[in-house]
Amino acid sequence: MSLLVVGSVAFDEVETPFGKTGKILGGAGTYISLAANHLTDKILLLSVVGGDFPEEYLNHFRNRQIDISGLKVVASEKTFFWAGKYHNDMNSRDTLVTELNVLAGFDPVVPPNALDAKYLMLGNLTPSIQKKVINQMRTRPKVVAMDTMNFWMQSAWDDLLEVLSMVDILTINDEEARLLSGESVIRKAARKILTMGPKYLIVKKGEHGAMLFDQNEIFYAPAIPLENVVDPTGAGDTFAGGLMGYLAAKDSVNFQEIKNAMVYGSVLASFTVETFGTENLLKISGKDIQGRLNEFIKMSSFNL
Amino acid sequence: MSLLVVGSVAFDEVETPFGKTGKILGGAGTYISLAANHLTDKILLLSVVGGDFPEEYLNHFRNRQIDISGLKVVASEKTFFWAGKYHNDMNSRDTLVTELNVLAGFDPVVPPNALDAKYLMLGNLTPSIQKKVINQMRTRPKVVAMDTMNFWMQSAWDDLLEVLSMVDILTINDEEARLLSGESVIRKAARKILTMGPKYLIVKKGEHGAMLFDQNEIFYAPAIPLENVVDPTGAGDTFAGGLMGYLAAKDSVNFQEIKNAMVYGSVLASFTVETFGTENLLKISGKDIQGRLNEFIKMSSFNL
Repeated sequence: MSLLVVGSVAFDEVETPFGKTGKILGGAGTYISLAANHLTDKILLLSVVGGDFPEEYLNHFRNRQIDISGLKVVASEKTFFWAGKYHNDMNSRDTLVTELNVLAGFDPVVPPNALDAKYLMLGNLTPSIQKKVINQMRTRPKVVAMDTMNFWMQSAWDDLLEVLSMVDILTINDEEARLLSGESVIRKAARKILTMGPKYLIVKKGEHGAMLFDQNEIFYAPAIPLENVVDPTGAGDTFAGGLMGYLAAKDSVNFQEIKNAMVYGSVLASFTVETFGTENLLKISGKDIQGRLNEFIKMSSFNL
Repeated sequence: MSLLVVGSVAFDEVETPFGKTGKILGGAGTYISLAANHLTDKILLLSVVGGDFPEEYLNHFRNRQIDISGLKVVASEKTFFWAGKYHNDMNSRDTLVTELNVLAGFDPVVPPNALDAKYLMLGNLTPSIQKKVINQMRTRPKVVAMDTMNFWMQSAWDDLLEVLSMVDILTINDEEARLLSGESVIRKAARKILTMGPKYLIVKKGEHGAMLFDQNEIFYAPAIPLENVVDPTGAGDTFAGGLMGYLAAKDSVNFQEIKNAMVYGSVLASFTVETFGTENLLKISGKDIQGRLNEFIKMSSFNL
């Protein structure tokens, strides 16, 4: 197993100015693993769903050789459900429903074949759960990356700080970087966060791209301006999946490779937001990815 | 004369979370010409000030060999005055005072030595005034670029459309692009605006960089994340000055060169926002610019 992905597998119900879905496949673990799968194989997804989770969705993972031996199905419970509505500008949303259901009791057990995974991506989850996964690893992974959110900064500060001290890469958005650091200027926020544990900080800025910081360097990856943004749900997780999928495939980690990984993450995320849910992620080919990668390179290169 | 700059020369009074200035040198024409001057010579500034405009400020231009034979001093009137206060996030501001004063009667007369200027930068002004300048040119400039703002879209629509049909490059911010086009998605907005006249559209996004569009291509120049943003006033005009200064110096205009010009514009703008008013623009050296250009290149390059 080269990439262990831990994150929610869920039902989402999304409303945007372009329409409203019923219950569709969602969750951080879903987006991360489906995205990473475009760049690397040997992925194991560690998560939990309820008895209501359809076989058809499980097959999406199976058909792609994503190992779901760590995806526990608890027959007596219901799958995590999230419903949200995006505002007209697509940059903000209201959460309408959060039913944790089976996720409330999620007690991840890393399967034996993933105990030595070299790459570990921790999707946004309770920090104590994230910590529990790291502590189960038999070998310290080459890279531990994590996502988190405002909510944990407000409700689980000490646990969050502890997990932060254990990871290599942190991916958060600009607002979260400000909250985590208490600094409103991103460059100052980054410097502070880099003293909390992560060697690399990635600040996601949605349609404005993403920035990478380490102690010495900065990289700013723009985002491709799209004609049709239909549903931003899962963009950040897709980005993280592309990032870690690329690193696991290369099996080489330094500032240069993380830059490249971010470009792949951005490219994959650009597909995710063009359709509702995972539709594009399940559909696109390597050729589609290469085409948009070329667009990205063209869009961001100059010669001075 | 290779670059003719038309735009306000003003007194500004600025309040930001970092402090409050008294009346300091400001105005679009000021920032544009001082920025362009770092990249090219043979600049003529066409504008108007009142009898209260200090000799010291005139000397800033004279000392840099910026031709101010077109800067009319109307002794009986007062200089244009603008006062504004920035909010805590520095991304929005309130205009506290706008006293047009001498600018209200600004009737630009292009001096003889600028009638064949190959590059013309029209700072944000009443569209009918911008048109008047274009119509006075003896030779159609190689490049006419213009800036404008929301206010004219709401109050001088027909005039604005007419000027737009006469220019090569339009520089506006994202909000203005949406208003001008009636399209909320920037890529759609750009396509529409490119049917209105300009061959090139530059959408400025402040701390998120700037995008260039023509019929076929897109370029996204990120902005350098800065430690200290003290006063954003003049950033857009500095960007435009850097852009046109670079093009005039190169005397070559195509998508590739405009990309490079935007990078210089971004680099210069990054200096402007680090101090109040024109302080940095008046102080920085070619070495400073080269240093930050290197930073910019490093920050935005990857190897895929």
